Amino acid sequence: MNPRLYSFIGGDTGPLAVIACKTLIGEPLPVVSHLEIQQGDVATVPHGAQWVLHGATANVRYTTSAERAQLEARQVALGRPEATYGALIPIRKSAAWWALAQDERRAIFEERSRHTTVGLKYLPAIARRLHHRRDLSTAEPFDFVTLFDYPETDASAFEDLVAALRDSEEWKFVEREVDIRFERR
Amino acid sequence: MNPRLYSFIGGDTGPLAVIACKTLIGEPLPVVSHLEIQQGDVATVPHGAQWVLHGATANVRYTTSAERAQLEARQVALGRPEATYGALIPIRKSAAWWALAQDERRAIFEERSRHTTVGLKYLPAIARRLHHRRDLSTAEPFDFVTLFDYPETDASAFEDLVAALRDSEEWKFVEREVDIRFERR
Repeated sequence: MNPRLYSFIGGDTGPLAVIACKTLIGEPLPVVSHLEIQQGDVATVPHGAQWVLHGATANVRYTTSAERAQLEARQVALGRPEATYGALIPIRKSAAWWALAQDERRAIFEERSRHTTVGLKYLPAIARRLHHRRDLSTAEPFDFVTLFDYPETDASAFEDLVAALRDSEEWKFVEREVDIRFERR
Repeated sequence: MNPRLYSFIGGDTGPLAVIACKTLIGEPLPVVSHLEIQQGDVATVPHGAQWVLHGATANVRYTTSAERAQLEARQVALGRPEATYGALIPIRKSAAWWALAQDERRAIFEERSRHTTVGLKYLPAIARRLHHRRDLSTAEPFDFVTLFDYPETDASAFEDLVAALRDSEEWKFVEREVDIRFERR
């Protein structure tokens, strides 16, 4: 098993209680009441699960050395005790995005959409882990699954962050996006 | 199933007859007499198979738009009738490589190792298809599997190509490499 693989299970049990689920672009994902996140694959799909998404953490694809130094100086890991709120946001990008060359994707991602620059403004309040699925063996409905957590006091900052990204040129290439908010009780 | 996934089966049957197998760096792969390449995963491992490698074709990771235009003007697909010779070269890169930022990997790959520039010199004689495995669900022994084919008259050009790449700075990050040559009879 790939040690960087995670499974995201939506169903009627799990340690994360879903408090909102909104499909922003494309086909909806069935609404569930709970989320469970497991490292590795799931051997058997838990009873009551509506869906299982997969993704693997990977090397950075656009971040430069200078940008990474700024990120590493400020970013925090998921799971801080005070970070009782969070979001699971699976997205799929269009065929047009994946057909672009590396410099074209980089230019849209950062020079024009300021993805990293925007994200930096919300560190260390908001923790984030990105999972890729494009190269997984299985056909998966989303290209990326990003998991966030934050303290209740930073909930409005999180709204500002996702609004800024959704307003960017990069997001014109997003053809499916679901935003699932949860509370760790 | 990921439609971009391929399986590379080494065993005692298959349409490609192995004519040489050399481990250049790291742990050897068991020597086999034949290769078979299947699109998708293998439902059951064929009788006599010694190993099955996997990889998925993916978006370009370093190629710029200008470089891609040059590649697309010259490159050919695998499977030309005259391309009866070929190579399957699985490699794994080191943790140090994967820990580099995107601009650092790009600088080593092209500005310092001239990976694309070197490859362009051998087009359209040598056809190539790159498969990634880093994000596959399963733990795989190699990061990339590259498949090449070429006419017998270009066999020495192929030796020049792999020698140039192996002499590059990029190859200092390769920690496992096996070079399996085959003939399609």
